[in-house]
Amino acid sequence: MSDLSEKAAENIRLIREKRPLIHNITNFVVMNYTANVLLAAGASPVMAHAENEVEEMVSFAGSLVLNIGTLTDVWVASMLKAARKASMLGTPIVLDPVGSGATRLRTNTAREIITRARVTIVRGNASEILSLRGADSKTKGVDTIHSVDDAAGSGGELARELGLTLAITGPVDLVTDGLRIVKVENGHPLMPFVTGTGCSATAIIGAFAAVDPDPVTAAATALAFFGLSGEKAAEKAAGPGSFMIALLDALYNLTPEEIVSGCRIIQA
Amino acid sequence: MSDLSEKAAENIRLIREKRPLIHNITNFVVMNYTANVLLAAGASPVMAHAENEVEEMVSFAGSLVLNIGTLTDVWVASMLKAARKASMLGTPIVLDPVGSGATRLRTNTAREIITRARVTIVRGNASEILSLRGADSKTKGVDTIHSVDDAAGSGGELARELGLTLAITGPVDLVTDGLRIVKVENGHPLMPFVTGTGCSATAIIGAFAAVDPDPVTAAATALAFFGLSGEKAAEKAAGPGSFMIALLDALYNLTPEEIVSGCRIIQA
Amino acid sequence: MSDLSEKAAENIRLIREKRPLIHNITNFVVMNYTANVLLAAGASPVMAHAENEVEEMVSFAGSLVLNIGTLTDVWVASMLKAARKASMLGTPIVLDPVGSGATRLRTNTAREIITRARVTIVRGNASEILSLRGADSKTKGVDTIHSVDDAAGSGGELARELGLTLAITGPVDLVTDGLRIVKVENGHPLMPFVTGTGCSATAIIGAFAAVDPDPVTAAATALAFFGLSGEKAAEKAAGPGSFMIALLDALYNLTPEEIVSGCRIIQA
Repeated sequence: MSDLSEKAAENIRLIREKRPLIHNITNFVVMNYTANVLLAAGASPVMAHAENEVEEMVSFAGSLVLNIGTLTDVWVASMLKAARKASMLGTPIVLDPVGSGATRLRTNTAREIITRARVTIVRGNASEILSLRGADSKTKGVDTIHSVDDAAGSGGELARELGLTLAITGPVDLVTDGLRIVKVENGHPLMPFVTGTGCSATAIIGAFAAVDPDPVTAAATALAFFGLSGEKAAEKAAGPGSFMIALLDALYNLTPEEIVSGCRIIQA
Repeated sequence: MSDLSEKAAENIRLIREKRPLIHNITNFVVMNYTANVLLAAGASPVMAHAENEVEEMVSFAGSLVLNIGTLTDVWVASMLKAARKASMLGTPIVLDPVGSGATRLRTNTAREIITRARVTIVRGNASEILSLRGADSKTKGVDTIHSVDDAAGSGGELARELGLTLAITGPVDLVTDGLRIVKVENGHPLMPFVTGTGCSATAIIGAFAAVDPDPVTAAATALAFFGLSGEKAAEKAAGPGSFMIALLDALYNLTPEEIVSGCRIIQA
Repeated sequence: MSDLSEKAAENIRLIREKRPLIHNITNFVVMNYTANVLLAAGASPVMAHAENEVEEMVSFAGSLVLNIGTLTDVWVASMLKAARKASMLGTPIVLDPVGSGATRLRTNTAREIITRARVTIVRGNASEILSLRGADSKTKGVDTIHSVDDAAGSGGELARELGLTLAITGPVDLVTDGLRIVKVENGHPLMPFVTGTGCSATAIIGAFAAVDPDPVTAAATALAFFGLSGEKAAEKAAGPGSFMIALLDALYNLTPEEIVSGCRIIQA
């Protein structure tokens, strides 16, 4: 138990009460699961990517979640348009640079979004995050090839350089804005066996950012809540299929008491 | 029990026997779940949206289901092309105006499809339906902000004006063609916590419309069957994840006897 | 038990050990489920379709899986680009000609991919496979209207003519390269009630082809493993929803011993 565990419970209470609209421009693979994750947690997801609609849609939203998983140029244009509008409105933007470092298109797109909009939080694995600084790392698809410890060393520096909060996920998650460092120990080994758990963690950060103005606590409490839901889900799971479904149930059912006692968030 | 409950059982019997092909042009978020819902109910779904394919595909179909959930201009063009072909062939068209009223793109598209094709049934929440008449309602994403009672008052008038059948869903569903009004009381509070349950209800209406030439009874019996499946699913569910899966099982398993005794359809 | 059952166990052991990257350019309906199927089996899926990314992505991959389920012209261009690159690299290409025979766009696309790239294995139902030879068969959506026996008669000839391995699935699956014929008897009647089981079988063939250089044994052992997982799933299923989830669990949990004893692969 910690102050941030209580913050996690408070944030989820606010989400369930206010049902913030989360505008997602995300990849085809995870759209359905991400929407279900947000609904189960109490938020109100909308997926909309048409260039002639995104500015209007994001103006209703509590946060904007961008995910470059199955991107093409026309989607990038819509992401940039939505991101600039959100920047003007002061709406939090959460970016998931899926596969950044693996192909030029993804690396360039992730960097372009960060350059051209006021991104609040970036959530990725260590390899994806490190690729944002121009290191010549190569991710193998969406898998991690660098350790979280690699990222911890340079994470704070990169966060300051980019002027945003980094949420670097792995067996242990690391959240830093360059001044503060928070570690989150929740999660379960079955998570990487379900597609979209990383993307869903990003979406959940979007929901938390819609009710918590501090990006570091929003990201850390979101990751702890999501990871704890994974732990609860694993108790009922016989494999990745039943785990994926039990995770939705857990996101919906976790009580404030369970959140306060179960979240393992360590302020370094 | 009512005549329409027996009609619901008869319609599902026909679907399971004939396995009508349902051509869906729908949104990315719900494609997978909608296809599984249709398969579980006994229908044969196909998703196809290429402008150079939709006319050929819809010519094989028992009905055409259009859903504007993640639309872009090129998808709208395909929807219109498929809808005009279906109109010529006398194939029923069911429209789901997801988010109509929330953005201009969606409102204009929903109205354009209704104007330029012979739409048989429109299924939406009260806010979406009311937006079709030019009222300046604003939906919050895909959520309802007007009550079904609001819609009931003006639903009949709007149905006559548009020359089609409206299926206005909410805690109680309302189906009207402007002459007849039918209420459906089936359903479960977990449904809004699963993405695509509204879109799936629309797809199920498409399956019923493929075997029942009366749009009012097709829509009402479809909604009762779908809502009843939700009730059965909730008996086994521990949250929205297990509910979503149990709903597919229930659609597949519901017997004629359960349908006749469980459907609550009231002719007003 | 047979030599090929032991080969199936060996192939799945290699997949779980090496976690080969499988590059999928597939349809919107099944992307999520296909990715989860590949993850559950131990492979590492990536979905990427941007024309300016596919050549780079496929160069990291152990195999390329192409699926024409919701194709449009721009996707076809990306498939061809990826396929030509894979051909140059000697990377196995597995094609799923979903709905080939039903519309001209699909039939022409399937044939064009086969003509312009070095496709290793084609997996489809009998109707789809037969459509590749210019027979005037018409598939009803993605359903089978020709029997596997029809296909068996002409399958070998067609495989030789096209210069590739055919995996023709149905109640009994048939794999042939025109010289050898293998039948696979695993599977379960609930499979056709879940969307994407055919597409997932194709993706699993992609995973097996990434570790087994013989297309005939790769396809046959993949289909046996996938079908056996369906049999295990059915033991725990109450309908197509719970079946779909239990299938993911089974893909993850099947042991080498279960695979050796459960696979029913017959060399004709």
